[in-house]
Amino acid sequence: MILAGGGGTRLWPLSRRQRPKHLLPVCGEESMLAQTWERLQPMLPTAHLLVVTVADHAPAVLGEIESIPRKNVVVEPMGRGTAACVGLAALIIRKRDPEATMIVLPADHTIEDAEGFRGVLRAGVQAAQDGHLVTLGIVPTGPETGYGYIHRGALLRQAEEHPVYRVERFTEKPDLATAQAFLDAGQYYWNSGIFVWKVAAILAEIERQMPNLYGGLLAIEDALGTRDQAQAIARVWRSVRSISVDFGIMEHAADVVVVPADVGWSDVGCWTSVASLSTADAQGNVLQGEHIVLDCEDTYIRSAGRLVAAVGLRGMVVIDTGDALLVCPKERAQDVKKIVEQLQREGRNQYL
Amino acid sequence: MILAGGGGTRLWPLSRRQRPKHLLPVCGEESMLAQTWERLQPMLPTAHLLVVTVADHAPAVLGEIESIPRKNVVVEPMGRGTAACVGLAALIIRKRDPEATMIVLPADHTIEDAEGFRGVLRAGVQAAQDGHLVTLGIVPTGPETGYGYIHRGALLRQAEEHPVYRVERFTEKPDLATAQAFLDAGQYYWNSGIFVWKVAAILAEIERQMPNLYGGLLAIEDALGTRDQAQAIARVWRSVRSISVDFGIMEHAADVVVVPADVGWSDVGCWTSVASLSTADAQGNVLQGEHIVLDCEDTYIRSAGRLVAAVGLRGMVVIDTGDALLVCPKERAQDVKKIVEQLQREGRNQYL
Repeated sequence: MILAGGGGTRLWPLSRRQRPKHLLPVCGEESMLAQTWERLQPMLPTAHLLVVTVADHAPAVLGEIESIPRKNVVVEPMGRGTAACVGLAALIIRKRDPEATMIVLPADHTIEDAEGFRGVLRAGVQAAQDGHLVTLGIVPTGPETGYGYIHRGALLRQAEEHPVYRVERFTEKPDLATAQAFLDAGQYYWNSGIFVWKVAAILAEIERQMPNLYGGLLAIEDALGTRDQAQAIARVWRSVRSISVDFGIMEHAADVVVVPADVGWSDVGCWTSVASLSTADAQGNVLQGEHIVLDCEDTYIRSAGRLVAAVGLRGMVVIDTGDALLVCPKERAQDVKKIVEQLQREGRNQYL
Repeated sequence: MILAGGGGTRLWPLSRRQRPKHLLPVCGEESMLAQTWERLQPMLPTAHLLVVTVADHAPAVLGEIESIPRKNVVVEPMGRGTAACVGLAALIIRKRDPEATMIVLPADHTIEDAEGFRGVLRAGVQAAQDGHLVTLGIVPTGPETGYGYIHRGALLRQAEEHPVYRVERFTEKPDLATAQAFLDAGQYYWNSGIFVWKVAAILAEIERQMPNLYGGLLAIEDALGTRDQAQAIARVWRSVRSISVDFGIMEHAADVVVVPADVGWSDVGCWTSVASLSTADAQGNVLQGEHIVLDCEDTYIRSAGRLVAAVGLRGMVVIDTGDALLVCPKERAQDVKKIVEQLQREGRNQYL
């Protein structure tokens, strides 16, 4: 199951409401969604891929993943957080195969070592088949404050040569000192939002922790695959609680384990991380599209067609799209979302 | 006489070969040429205004100055420096009135105090009518290294309450230490390229110092006002020496005086000076066109229509035109001409 929701405001002005991050070729020639699927393709047939998205983006999703059956693109009437989303997918998969094991992935991350990543997933699947709820824990490469962390507990077993640990605790995004302490301790992983579990196991946890959602899902079940499906989902979604799978389920789940993954993962969270994923020249510049630079260093220029001329820039980001342009120092790249928020407040919808 | 040649590469990407600086509304709503003429209008009728330009720009010049007689827009077949240009204008004016006094101005400067400026010009005219070659010397406001300086000599007289000094020496663009010494000495002015003289006086100096040019001008004289004019000029211009009136004539002229001008002059030489001529907000930003800024200071944004979003900029210039964009720190604004030179070398003519 790939979660292909909205989002990506920190990649504005490329990422827009109608062209969210995962539908864009942020790194490389293909969309992040297409790349996410390509990474999984050696493991499973397209018939086993489920993508959950919103109605506006469904045609684009079908375009990005060749040969995906139309019924495998599930449309949410509105975003309600990942808990409901995952529950719906689990319900659909259970109806096809009650014994199925399910991998959940966001659509907007990159992985350098795809083969290694599939190895970790296989280990996760093995652990999940023993009934655990499995999270992938990204081995941290720095004291990042933008991610939640997973504190591992005791070593449970080895699966396909990968260690499987009990999860001691999920923690929220830490401050810098805490993040550094986590990094030094060496028993913490970034929460990637990638999970593996049997559909029975996750639905049992939903029933236990979110009975209202579970009841709603049961009310949808009979309509699945019929022409009433969309209406049934819409009816339930109106009143479903909006919460993430992390907070709504994982934090208090009974049997959670973590499989560490050291595979060059990035959530491509902002323009600075896009730049760091691209090949730089001798001056540390990443220059894409029509450009001319004089005496620039550590600068990322991305043009959609017009000429971008830069003189004497240090550590800057210049993103030029059809109707909007962003200029920002790399260390302020997280604040791009504030520009989007301000545009929203000002009702400048043509730029959203 | 207004010199409306090409140039303005430091105002790229706004200024282009086909839209040079003086034809653009760089500051305010009107072109610099139109503003230059408006400043003079209280002093003389349009019939007495001569504009020298190149063929490509002649239609635009006619459009910028309402009611200028077509024969008063003189076309050079190619730029040959201001010496030849001024000689040609002097010749044309002498034919209309051998006793005429002539004011020479570039088309691309701004003046804050237009009334004061006309007062200085009137003093210049009075001094010129005594036979002197008059230069306007801009009272320096800083140790500028981008201008030539005029070292004044003895006070010659007062004209219309303005002092008129003999010129001791013209100096080339100084280094910073020398410029500071000039400023401290207080007897130096910036060479503005604004001159006043009797046509007889300047033509006599041309005859003495540039006999070849003078001979060429005489060869043109009979054709003036006939249908052979353009061809006659073209014939002479082919072999005329390309040199400025400063180097070619003024530096070694016999009787040069300077009238100081303290009138808020600027040659609008680069984007930083454009910014400094515009009204800034409380953070020192000048923001023109569609924009959204977050936490910016001392920054100049100029958009021709698209949205420019800026986060965390300090002392930057962002100029967004239809097909090209410039991003540059203010202190590197002089280097924008190097971008244009590089585009020339690379043959990217669509951006020139």
